[in-house]
Amino acid sequence: MLLTIPMHEFKERQNKFFEKMDEKNVDAAVLFAVTDIFYLTGFHFHPTERPIGLFVDPDKKVHIFLPQLEHEHAEEYSVVDHVHSYPEYPGIKHPMEYFKQLLKEYGVEGKTVGYDAIGYGSSQGYRGPSVDKLIDVKEFVSLAGVIEEFRFVKSDSEIELIKESCRWGNLAHRLLQKYTKEGLSEIEITSKASMEATMAMIETLGPDYKPHGQTAYAIFRGQIGPESAFPHAVTQNAILQKGDTLVTGAAADVFGYKSELERTMFVGEYTKDQEKYFNYMYEAQDVAFDAIKAGTSYASVEQQVQNYFKEQGITELTRHHTGHNIGLLGHEAPFFDLGDDTEIKAGMVVTVEPGIYVPGLGGFRHSDTVLVTEDGIEMLTYYPRDLASLIC
Amino acid sequence: MLLTIPMHEFKERQNKFFEKMDEKNVDAAVLFAVTDIFYLTGFHFHPTERPIGLFVDPDKKVHIFLPQLEHEHAEEYSVVDHVHSYPEYPGIKHPMEYFKQLLKEYGVEGKTVGYDAIGYGSSQGYRGPSVDKLIDVKEFVSLAGVIEEFRFVKSDSEIELIKESCRWGNLAHRLLQKYTKEGLSEIEITSKASMEATMAMIETLGPDYKPHGQTAYAIFRGQIGPESAFPHAVTQNAILQKGDTLVTGAAADVFGYKSELERTMFVGEYTKDQEKYFNYMYEAQDVAFDAIKAGTSYASVEQQVQNYFKEQGITELTRHHTGHNIGLLGHEAPFFDLGDDTEIKAGMVVTVEPGIYVPGLGGFRHSDTVLVTEDGIEMLTYYPRDLASLIC
Repeated sequence: MLLTIPMHEFKERQNKFFEKMDEKNVDAAVLFAVTDIFYLTGFHFHPTERPIGLFVDPDKKVHIFLPQLEHEHAEEYSVVDHVHSYPEYPGIKHPMEYFKQLLKEYGVEGKTVGYDAIGYGSSQGYRGPSVDKLIDVKEFVSLAGVIEEFRFVKSDSEIELIKESCRWGNLAHRLLQKYTKEGLSEIEITSKASMEATMAMIETLGPDYKPHGQTAYAIFRGQIGPESAFPHAVTQNAILQKGDTLVTGAAADVFGYKSELERTMFVGEYTKDQEKYFNYMYEAQDVAFDAIKAGTSYASVEQQVQNYFKEQGITELTRHHTGHNIGLLGHEAPFFDLGDDTEIKAGMVVTVEPGIYVPGLGGFRHSDTVLVTEDGIEMLTYYPRDLASLIC
Repeated sequence: MLLTIPMHEFKERQNKFFEKMDEKNVDAAVLFAVTDIFYLTGFHFHPTERPIGLFVDPDKKVHIFLPQLEHEHAEEYSVVDHVHSYPEYPGIKHPMEYFKQLLKEYGVEGKTVGYDAIGYGSSQGYRGPSVDKLIDVKEFVSLAGVIEEFRFVKSDSEIELIKESCRWGNLAHRLLQKYTKEGLSEIEITSKASMEATMAMIETLGPDYKPHGQTAYAIFRGQIGPESAFPHAVTQNAILQKGDTLVTGAAADVFGYKSELERTMFVGEYTKDQEKYFNYMYEAQDVAFDAIKAGTSYASVEQQVQNYFKEQGITELTRHHTGHNIGLLGHEAPFFDLGDDTEIKAGMVVTVEPGIYVPGLGGFRHSDTVLVTEDGIEMLTYYPRDLASLIC
């Protein structure tokens, strides 16, 4: 049972980044993106006013820079050559002054330096100088998107973690369906299902399980009855009524890796109309599953789903594209979107979730997490999709 | 019972922003910060790959720009002059191309334009051109931090919403303490307390309550027993043992406004050592409460707390500054920090949370949410702070 990314894989990711640095002719690099720093080092960080940074010096040593509060934690958990910390933000001396000293000390000054962003960014009260104000360099070269693109294709370990996430999402969803009954309220149902799934998850996986995110949960997000027609409805603690259309969601984070499982369900009974829209949605998802093939483009999948909707004459009931990559973030590029010509490759993990929204009646959307393989797809979520299995 | 910011207040905020624009001699302004857009318009948005933007045209009309998915929602809930939307991201035509057209159509081109950031920012797969690539202007003038500073001093409505948040945080914490017992697990206790508090909150406040965040919750975040010595511990679903030191947290979001309530508690019994550190922490918090006065600086409060720790010879057990502003974000500037000379003003709402961390024994930290008044402070959180009240 794999619950973490092995240390050698962090080293491999770093080596791949060093190769990219060589390709881009940069001697050193400075990164501030929290997710990318986690991806390269395994150090999970909650961004607040206190900045984090990473730099690769001209000897290709990897340095992490963070608040003293996190120093001990970083020494234990981060795969880096050096951990550096500053006392506090804003501090008598600004953290970026310490960072500047380190960049100078490790010979980054005067070099060609890659960077992902002009500085640490957080809405939570951080202010500081941009990186070009810290040191004089030969040249700054943007590396924006480089590590994001590394993250497009998942490794075997990453796929294992996403599968683990799917397992516990499946349990949470099973419990959600079990407790979903006419007359009960949204929060009663989702709290009970989420709590039990989380307990089972933690007691099964033991102390090696680090969520780096949320433990198992199942939700409706207010997508109950006619409100489910709003793709971004919010919890109102509605009481479920017979015949309500529900759009669910269930997942769990495993070492920061996510999955997505959503189902359209009906409370007790359904009308011909609900069945009709359910079937459109179901078929649209099938169209997408068939269309996803290594070597084709994300846009081509979206095109086929949109063709299907057009043939059925229900284009005006759609509100969003068919899906996106998923991994360390809930939404990652590329997207199943007419404007995204990225090539689909084996090892990419995507969500498939075409949706139909019928005002006054409800929303109709399943979401499954799917691995692209050499010759097709592998479903990573495995909760039943058929109508008969989704009546509560 | 106030559960939202009244519409006229959004207008007042916008007028204040227009005055600032005049002061800075800008004819128009472009903003991308999600929290600031919410503050100005009341439109709550979950940032993903799909960008949001706001602009003020030279006639001082306010325009919001968002995905079509959100259009209807924005028409209903945002206090703006115009709602514009784009079909999808990335789309056949990039959203920023639509934005560019709007900026031209409403006469922003060729003008002096204020901006908060070079473009929309999201880690969730968004890429797009910076604002200076969209249109030719006379001059770009940075307005970074302008609205953040508006948010420093809270209005009466904002204070009411924070007080409402404190009420439900108090209930969640009361339930947490009630269910905290030796032999039970972290998640059992926190799930039960959070669920009951949320149910009571939603059933009491009714459908006018919009969390724009989390409903009532109470947590330990893994800060149980010796693990509580790590200020950023994570949930391990520990079984509580007699004598454990606990550091809790409880709150609820009300129309996006937050509060912070944290308590150090002991399971069943405590040692002389635990009592000693509890008392240091308690006294340090009193020092801070006494030090907070309109007209003095944030740094001076931190200095007095640090002086107290130094007198007691326990400086090496501290890990972070004493607190921060709070409002629409959990952490907001300014900070009770030696490096923050901002003047404390009546109407600011702050957290007061000096902490002590004793390796092997535990963490000792209360956090209270406090309003600065003309002649001192008003405690907004009101959960008992004394040792006798905090034994479970």
